[in-house]
Amino acid sequence: MQIFETKTAPNPRRVRIFLAEKDIPMNYVQIDMLKGEQFTPEFRARNALAQVPVLELDDGSYLSESVAICRYFEELQPEPALFGSSPREKAEVEMWNRRVELNFLFPTGMCFQHTHPFFKPFKPQVPEWGELCRARSEAFFKVLNTQLSQQPFVAGANFSIADITALCTIDFARVIQLKIKPDHTHLLRWHQAVSQRPSAQA
Amino acid sequence: MQIFETKTAPNPRRVRIFLAEKDIPMNYVQIDMLKGEQFTPEFRARNALAQVPVLELDDGSYLSESVAICRYFEELQPEPALFGSSPREKAEVEMWNRRVELNFLFPTGMCFQHTHPFFKPFKPQVPEWGELCRARSEAFFKVLNTQLSQQPFVAGANFSIADITALCTIDFARVIQLKIKPDHTHLLRWHQAVSQRPSAQA
Repeated sequence: MQIFETKTAPNPRRVRIFLAEKDIPMNYVQIDMLKGEQFTPEFRARNALAQVPVLELDDGSYLSESVAICRYFEELQPEPALFGSSPREKAEVEMWNRRVELNFLFPTGMCFQHTHPFFKPFKPQVPEWGELCRARSEAFFKVLNTQLSQQPFVAGANFSIADITALCTIDFARVIQLKIKPDHTHLLRWHQAVSQRPSAQA
Repeated sequence: MQIFETKTAPNPRRVRIFLAEKDIPMNYVQIDMLKGEQFTPEFRARNALAQVPVLELDDGSYLSESVAICRYFEELQPEPALFGSSPREKAEVEMWNRRVELNFLFPTGMCFQHTHPFFKPFKPQVPEWGELCRARSEAFFKVLNTQLSQQPFVAGANFSIADITALCTIDFARVIQLKIKPDHTHLLRWHQAVSQRPSAQA
């Protein structure tokens, strides 16, 4: 098995942290997105949507979408559970992972793509949309701070994929000039704790 | 248990079809989004993000995010499996459900919100972004047609939540003037088949 990915992008980091938490070794192959290597016919044969990461299985077939790759390994090696254990916990993790994706990770990515000069040659930019996304991302810091004032981790009592998604988004949000404010004390406490886990370096 | 929802919106329909496929009875309470009932303090206590659907559990607590609600019921009543059975199948369903959401359902919703006069008083519109989303949604019809030329259902051999998401999006896409083209014969075959399942009327 091996994973085609781009070290600096937030989605591949989600998968790397997930696998590190499960202590699953993996061979990573770098795809240079700045050079457009994801658009080659060779790469599109792995993922027609030209996105990283892509997992190549031992039978030569491929799986893409970060959360789908994570779920595959959760099924193969359930412990430690990163998608929750009981039905209610699994639903809470799904809910919070999606909330973080929809209201934080995706707007942060869209703001970056629609406002940063780097993307100008590659795709049409709508800066006004990018700014709306920045405001949406910024608002979610408060949602996370409130949630973390009530429980240790994003989806409840246990570390989960929702924490991984939130951590990767917060660290990535620096590219759109957003960071945790000093008065978001609960979010700061959580960020320090999850950043100190060995997996954060994966 | 009961679900607060809005009959005409695509996400609540995903949950209704899912529960109908599992033959799980449910009491549905309508929220009039045209009147802004999702923004009342009473509703925000159920879901701070002011979105439908919301599941109220018997202990008075709440779960939101359509797929989280579906996953909760998949865990409580695994058969028929709508998130896949084997690890590989579960990963394929996750991958395709996400592909349909990210590249089809979400752009369709955003096009609607950014181009339709109805939303003008409620939120800032960026019509240029809405048009980019329309093009993205339109392109995904072809992706689905290609996928369905190779297998009976969106994520493989079995009906799954990925089919539900695709069906709800295609039927909803009429609001942005998109529908299946006559030459997308595989997609037409599939759409006719899934529309004839009793759950499609839920």
